Amino acid sequence: MKLDFSHTNIKDEELTKIKDILNHALKWLWNLSERKVIGFLELPFRDTEHIKRLVADKRKELDTLILIGIGGSSLGAECLIKALKGSYEKFFVLDNVDPIKLKEILPRIDPEKCCFNVVSKSGSTAETIANFIALVSALKEKLGWEKIKERLVITTDPEKGSLRELARKENIASLEVPPNVAGRYSVLSDVGLFPAAFTGIDIDKVLLGAKTAYKELDLDVLESKPLILSGIYWLSYLKGKRISVMMTYSERLEKFSDWYRQLWAESLGKGEKGQTPVKAIGTVDQHSQIQLYNDGPKDKIITLLHAEELEGDFCLEEIPAFSELESFKYLFGHSLGELFKAELLGTMGAFIKYRVPFLRLTLDRINEENMGWLFFTYQVATAINGYLYGVNPFDQPAVEEGKRFAYGILGRQGFEEKRKELTKLLQFDFLESPS
Amino acid sequence: MKLDFSHTNIKDEELTKIKDILNHALKWLWNLSERKVIGFLELPFRDTEHIKRLVADKRKELDTLILIGIGGSSLGAECLIKALKGSYEKFFVLDNVDPIKLKEILPRIDPEKCCFNVVSKSGSTAETIANFIALVSALKEKLGWEKIKERLVITTDPEKGSLRELARKENIASLEVPPNVAGRYSVLSDVGLFPAAFTGIDIDKVLLGAKTAYKELDLDVLESKPLILSGIYWLSYLKGKRISVMMTYSERLEKFSDWYRQLWAESLGKGEKGQTPVKAIGTVDQHSQIQLYNDGPKDKIITLLHAEELEGDFCLEEIPAFSELESFKYLFGHSLGELFKAELLGTMGAFIKYRVPFLRLTLDRINEENMGWLFFTYQVATAINGYLYGVNPFDQPAVEEGKRFAYGILGRQGFEEKRKELTKLLQFDFLESPS
Repeated sequence: MKLDFSHTNIKDEELTKIKDILNHALKWLWNLSERKVIGFLELPFRDTEHIKRLVADKRKELDTLILIGIGGSSLGAECLIKALKGSYEKFFVLDNVDPIKLKEILPRIDPEKCCFNVVSKSGSTAETIANFIALVSALKEKLGWEKIKERLVITTDPEKGSLRELARKENIASLEVPPNVAGRYSVLSDVGLFPAAFTGIDIDKVLLGAKTAYKELDLDVLESKPLILSGIYWLSYLKGKRISVMMTYSERLEKFSDWYRQLWAESLGKGEKGQTPVKAIGTVDQHSQIQLYNDGPKDKIITLLHAEELEGDFCLEEIPAFSELESFKYLFGHSLGELFKAELLGTMGAFIKYRVPFLRLTLDRINEENMGWLFFTYQVATAINGYLYGVNPFDQPAVEEGKRFAYGILGRQGFEEKRKELTKLLQFDFLESPS
Repeated sequence: MKLDFSHTNIKDEELTKIKDILNHALKWLWNLSERKVIGFLELPFRDTEHIKRLVADKRKELDTLILIGIGGSSLGAECLIKALKGSYEKFFVLDNVDPIKLKEILPRIDPEKCCFNVVSKSGSTAETIANFIALVSALKEKLGWEKIKERLVITTDPEKGSLRELARKENIASLEVPPNVAGRYSVLSDVGLFPAAFTGIDIDKVLLGAKTAYKELDLDVLESKPLILSGIYWLSYLKGKRISVMMTYSERLEKFSDWYRQLWAESLGKGEKGQTPVKAIGTVDQHSQIQLYNDGPKDKIITLLHAEELEGDFCLEEIPAFSELESFKYLFGHSLGELFKAELLGTMGAFIKYRVPFLRLTLDRINEENMGWLFFTYQVATAINGYLYGVNPFDQPAVEEGKRFAYGILGRQGFEEKRKELTKLLQFDFLESPS
């Protein structure tokens, strides 16, 4: 893991100056962790035997995983699987409730061979429950409830909520989301590790990488990458960088941006504060966003995330028909991967010339350990930024209002007033014209 | 098509006040079009017989399309095909040069049945040429150059560039990118229409929709959706909305955000100006970005794009095992689609309460005409915003620098100095440590 922040326009001295406040933030974090107010710092040390046993059991007859979950219940697993297994063809995520999503998945799966992992910390996430009901409705003729049950794994609160109640009552295999771990900090719990292990990922190695990042928290600020990153992002925010672009030069890492996007936005976007996280993909977005990044408002800090080792490569051979073509010639003898790396370096050069601050995070390769390191490091950096911003990085109060209105529309008991309030706000009767 | 801007915090009077400048901008646009400086306004009226003939010819033996192109050469076609054909399994895009991309596509295709559409306006886009060479290298043993040639369609400048030279010399089927149409404005030319037609989309209907939008340009500002949108986005920018979120409540429309993102960023991001476009997906991003949108900085305008008619739906039946569960009950009897719409309305209600400005664009359904309308409308709105910002919305000068450095690294003739310059800027010798 290499972290180069020499082009962030933030100097070592500036980091040294905020050393004390970073250490305060870290103490605050340790304290919350010791008091069990938060749980994510301890996740790397949890035992994984129960996950591996469950996976071994399910994999005996099943080869496909349908993950029913949304937000923090799905993004971590998706990121891990894309990074380590590529476009794995036997893994599907039912997050959105646009009916087309389920409609397109059904013909592609053999339900007999599917494990259905329903993930919701509260056990009441509307999208997840609805997709679960819809899936069971769609499959019950073919499989019957008993066979569906055998293929189910419920991941939810250890005690509370409707999903826990169902698991208990129907004796369904289940896993736990620690009550003191918010969804976006849960990738290193059963939430992210069961789907990863099901697809063949070595989850102990993932946790090993997280432990490496954990150990870095004991180092001096300027030696500790989680703390350097915390400081760099905070100072960039103070310097007016309202937007934080996570730009991956790696197809396998692109879902890390989606994971980061939730973590950053939901943890820090409160009290009119918060950097807006943006996902970008190199080289694709050189042909879409680079004009804006280079010559638009200087309100962005860019993180370039990539891996030194590329998997597979293609030589650009000289084909006779191509040999005289001006725009082809210089490529012969190079490989796709060489062009990919040259484009990254070229983009860095352009950022320097246009004075666009960026930091570069280089993994030696994309493997279990490095993914664990990345997750843990960014979770710490996010939590510490919460302290520095003066916001609580572990709650998300402003997502509730929209849910309550939706409950009102659907006639959920106790939300009758929200329905009336919404009719007034929208100034039209959505019941007559529901779209 | 319905456009509701009653919650943008921008009043009719404000739009009326800028009527004159919007009309000036429109005149400027007509003038550029009449002088053939720009070509996109005339695209809806171009004949499509040559495209349909070529598609009929290729479809005789081929059923899979591999589009080799990046940015404006691929995003429009991807958007059209996703919107109208869903997750079409016989369509692949080779945009990025991460070798994993080609490596993952190769085992999924039968090269004998593939049409390869190489798209680059200049005929020299490094990624596209490199992916083309790599693909030909990978397939030449199996197919041989003659059979590859029969399966090729080159879309490029009518006269200039290496791809045109190749098409001429080797007698390869070819299509044209009008020289006065920049890539991001080219979806309604051969660039977007050939891939669309290949997958079975009625391209004349797409153009028909674009013509409907064209006609709206003659209407009074407050009657013309392209002009209203132009004004709303500009006024929002003047009011400090630095970020424009395109949030689609429709899985099929999600690639419209990627297309918009390029159009908006590359056209307007110059001279330290420009809104940063952001892609968001409802309901997924309610569980990721809504906390930030509702309670973070008030620097965003949100566009909610959705369709009234959903394709397919799933009833949420009451399964006996579920009947007593609190978080399940209120959903029984509803459908997935009803929940989807309730979530959209709930999000709108929350935006109003949190004073997040948003506009809502409702298609009656996702069809050819509406997609054509959308593309044309947003292209006009973007071009007009260029005039209002005082920037040229048709060029992209700041994307060149990174390319020149990459050429330098790869040893392209004439770029030796760029290589030296880059070494100095990066302060390390990338040749010894190329990653």
